[in-house]
Amino acid sequence: MPSTLPRHPVQHYTEMTVSQLEPDDLLPARERIAGKILATPVMRSEIIDGQLGCQVYFKCEQLQVTGSFKIRGASHAVSLLDEACPGVATHSSGNHGAALAKAAQARGLPAHVVMPETAVRSKVEAVRRFGGTVHFCEPTQAAREAGLRALVDEGFEPVPPYDDDRIIAGQGSCAMELLEQVSDLDVLIAPVGGGGLLAGSALAAARSPREIRVIGAEPAGADDAKRSLRSGQRVDRHEPDTIADGLRALVGLRNLSLMQRFQVEVITVDEEQILEAMTLTWTHLKQVIEPSGAVALAALQLAARSNPEAWSAKRVGVILSGGNLDIQPMIETLRPTGASE
Amino acid sequence: MPSTLPRHPVQHYTEMTVSQLEPDDLLPARERIAGKILATPVMRSEIIDGQLGCQVYFKCEQLQVTGSFKIRGASHAVSLLDEACPGVATHSSGNHGAALAKAAQARGLPAHVVMPETAVRSKVEAVRRFGGTVHFCEPTQAAREAGLRALVDEGFEPVPPYDDDRIIAGQGSCAMELLEQVSDLDVLIAPVGGGGLLAGSALAAARSPREIRVIGAEPAGADDAKRSLRSGQRVDRHEPDTIADGLRALVGLRNLSLMQRFQVEVITVDEEQILEAMTLTWTHLKQVIEPSGAVALAALQLAARSNPEAWSAKRVGVILSGGNLDIQPMIETLRPTGASE
Repeated sequence: MPSTLPRHPVQHYTEMTVSQLEPDDLLPARERIAGKILATPVMRSEIIDGQLGCQVYFKCEQLQVTGSFKIRGASHAVSLLDEACPGVATHSSGNHGAALAKAAQARGLPAHVVMPETAVRSKVEAVRRFGGTVHFCEPTQAAREAGLRALVDEGFEPVPPYDDDRIIAGQGSCAMELLEQVSDLDVLIAPVGGGGLLAGSALAAARSPREIRVIGAEPAGADDAKRSLRSGQRVDRHEPDTIADGLRALVGLRNLSLMQRFQVEVITVDEEQILEAMTLTWTHLKQVIEPSGAVALAALQLAARSNPEAWSAKRVGVILSGGNLDIQPMIETLRPTGASE
Repeated sequence: MPSTLPRHPVQHYTEMTVSQLEPDDLLPARERIAGKILATPVMRSEIIDGQLGCQVYFKCEQLQVTGSFKIRGASHAVSLLDEACPGVATHSSGNHGAALAKAAQARGLPAHVVMPETAVRSKVEAVRRFGGTVHFCEPTQAAREAGLRALVDEGFEPVPPYDDDRIIAGQGSCAMELLEQVSDLDVLIAPVGGGGLLAGSALAAARSPREIRVIGAEPAGADDAKRSLRSGQRVDRHEPDTIADGLRALVGLRNLSLMQRFQVEVITVDEEQILEAMTLTWTHLKQVIEPSGAVALAALQLAARSNPEAWSAKRVGVILSGGNLDIQPMIETLRPTGASE
């Protein structure tokens, strides 16, 4: 099937609610972002493998440009903008905003980012470091979307964080790379917030001659993707409560359509499991992974513990999606008691 | 000059106080440990380069087997043991102990490790994970040495943590690798506790056709190497007070002799500077670096801020020596207030 990437992204964004992407659309997307992103390494840990009883291949997007996978989709969307584009706008918990600012800066364009006032401080700093302008809003989906609409009304081109075929196609490059780096994966697990990374991963897995089970990992406190898949349509009640700040957004309609089409499952994990998965990656991989970035490992850990036989010796790809969080308060805990008095 | 590695390490350990190593002794040492250690990657950060005004090449020993450079020396010493060796013993704040346990385990030998009762919990666990037996002692140099003597009296072969030519030659493989990975380094900075890594680095730099300035980075609260170099002989008063638990040991005599011979300088840094360097590496490299592991960056930061012109555009190798610390209390800080009630 021919590539169906939209020529007029704004129309596309406002009118279409089912993704038009085909698996092979990932190929031109990947060409467009070559040189703008890193092929991130895959890490392993004997200790984690031993604890889980399977072979885990960690795809390290915390080492990606801007510290998360988001630059993949943002670079792709920016590569498709008209020459005359006056600048871009989006809403984001932080990582997409920083990625879009970086991608726009590389083209000399201004970037405006609507962020919840509760956003992680280092994520706000990252948007500004790459020249982006931050517009704070209340931490609700409605406020984020209203903030973006106002910027679009001013003439800026919207580059939504996930519900956009340009974005999904770009994020798909992550799983494409992983499937090239590790042959014969049985399972691929990606976190799901808005669903850009997960939908892109499903497209990438569909290109494999091998049958690969694709699983979305979602915080139980923001289980809109799970509930939406179960009911067959996107939920309209969504009050996220999770430390995984990157996964609080409402799953996108295009993203959901791809999850349905490729029969993606979702596993939900609680906050304890997320904290435990973070501790595992920090301790044994020596990698700083943000809460959202550890959710895929948390899901694997839950699944492998519940049914060790089913997971025994399985080859599992786990996407560590990012590593942006406020480090300083954590380092402060090392200060000897009384030393700061 | 011919290799002068000792045939009888015990004699060597007890009788010699000046290192007999020549720079080319690093070559056979490196061959002996090939396949037992990893060639760790070198990382960069545009943001850190921008802040310091020079080009920083981070040698990532937190990604080494056992999470620190210590496996280099430990593997080397173990490769030189007699067939009849009944087992090994050492004292260690943790990283050398874990490395020696791992190296001994690979040869089917028991390992006994004297550790201060204040040792980092995850370091104690690591020694045990690799099959080592931990013997706790008071956190003083005298208690550590007395504990080791008792084990040697039981017949175990001592593999001291740093004051040993086998160890120094093994640690030298780290800087050798770095100098192959990055050509034209102007400066090489390594942390100094007992001085194994720093002395090995000085030997490696001496093999370079290029003049490379070698700098030891030491906590001000454990500045025995600095004071020893200044006075010309090893200090005898040493009451370390620093969060850099891996750098509290008293500098070794052989290590000091090599530092003198190769005109190594030492820069001391305070605790704030160590915490700041940790925050930098965690935030921008996404790497978990223990306090001792961040001391070389802290020294570079101090030097580059004090004299920006002298450091401008310099190519600086910084050894991140390890990444072992207790992660769980840091992750706990992410728990929303009240959630654990």
